[in-house]
Amino acid sequence: MAEKEERVKLLGFWASPFTCRVEMALKLKGVPYEYLEQDIVNKSPLLLQLNPVHKKVPVLVHKGKPILESNLILEYIDQTWTNNPIFPQDPYKKATARFLAKFVDEQLAPVGFRSLVKAEKGIEVAIKEAQELIMFLEKEVTGKDFFGGEKIGFLDMVIGTMIPYCGVRAWEFMGIDMIPEEKFPELNRWIKNLNEVEIVRECVPPREEHIEHLKRNAKRIKSAYKRQT
Amino acid sequence: MAEKEERVKLLGFWASPFTCRVEMALKLKGVPYEYLEQDIVNKSPLLLQLNPVHKKVPVLVHKGKPILESNLILEYIDQTWTNNPIFPQDPYKKATARFLAKFVDEQLAPVGFRSLVKAEKGIEVAIKEAQELIMFLEKEVTGKDFFGGEKIGFLDMVIGTMIPYCGVRAWEFMGIDMIPEEKFPELNRWIKNLNEVEIVRECVPPREEHIEHLKRNAKRIKSAYKRQT
Repeated sequence: MAEKEERVKLLGFWASPFTCRVEMALKLKGVPYEYLEQDIVNKSPLLLQLNPVHKKVPVLVHKGKPILESNLILEYIDQTWTNNPIFPQDPYKKATARFLAKFVDEQLAPVGFRSLVKAEKGIEVAIKEAQELIMFLEKEVTGKDFFGGEKIGFLDMVIGTMIPYCGVRAWEFMGIDMIPEEKFPELNRWIKNLNEVEIVRECVPPREEHIEHLKRNAKRIKSAYKRQT
Repeated sequence: MAEKEERVKLLGFWASPFTCRVEMALKLKGVPYEYLEQDIVNKSPLLLQLNPVHKKVPVLVHKGKPILESNLILEYIDQTWTNNPIFPQDPYKKATARFLAKFVDEQLAPVGFRSLVKAEKGIEVAIKEAQELIMFLEKEVTGKDFFGGEKIGFLDMVIGTMIPYCGVRAWEFMGIDMIPEEKFPELNRWIKNLNEVEIVRECVPPREEHIEHLKRNAKRIKSAYKRQT
């Protein structure tokens, strides 16, 4: 019984960037886990019980207790399994990494997203707004192999799942070259480095199915957006 | 020169709950700091230079470097000055504290806020929505002196500055009893405990001026809201 409860479980959704970053961290640490794919429309009683506040994936279950919110799960994983650290140890670098993660998820992602739904009116403005924010990341990764330094770390997992393996795929089928090489040489170099990392390749959603999923999503969001305006 | 750069500076605004929680943490740790009050309408060149992304207070400056976002500043303070810990050490308790802080700032605060601007239409619904979320906090503090246990900690600073010393003051002048004793006995007990803590009394904005400030704010927000709808 005790052994069963010790087992790590991950409730996730295959196309979720938030689930993907948790899988990367678990794999980097070599933590074995049971993956439980969730229906994000008809939510399972288990999900509702474990995350009554947001009712969202990912949820990590460790020693029978739920840990919520992807970036907080990464903090938990790094504190619990201390091999292969994913956060910088220096307090200032740690604060900067946390700040940029929050910036990407809460500020950049919604702005980048808007460029998809506002495509008919003012696409140029939407792209310019997103690129101004992306420029902060370009500066941050300049001269480094990864945001985490020589190896992938917390920020590579957060930004990687959100930008190249989610945003870029969506922008591509919209015909938007959001991160052109001449404007963002350092980010493009970083994306190439990221593509070489085995754990990343194992965890990111398969390209073709993912793009189909993003297309369906974009259509749904666009029509919801039109009804509102 | 080195000595000067070592000195901690805090850029803040007197009525900001986010500034207030950082002051509580610095005082609890006994860290001397220079407080620089900011004009949040006509932003100073220093603020724009230190926080180019959000251009917001609070900003903590330590060793000449800016640390941003109040809850991340609390993390930084706790890691840098290790006396009087404000975060729990246990990874699960730490994850829960971080989750609840995010919940209060990003979910509960906007919902509670809505009850002010939507006062004319459907006030009962707005109050009910906010109270459902507040009930999560009631459960969390049950049987404890503080969210942090026997002493105030991270969550007391976050929730304290947001609810009793901001939300409750605003709800009061709107005539809303959002946290009635009979419905939330544990939270009311916690608020009484909090009022007894010297650091808290030193840091919270003075009641009368604060309420005048909140009234002016509510008026501005209401008219902006009306223009939108």
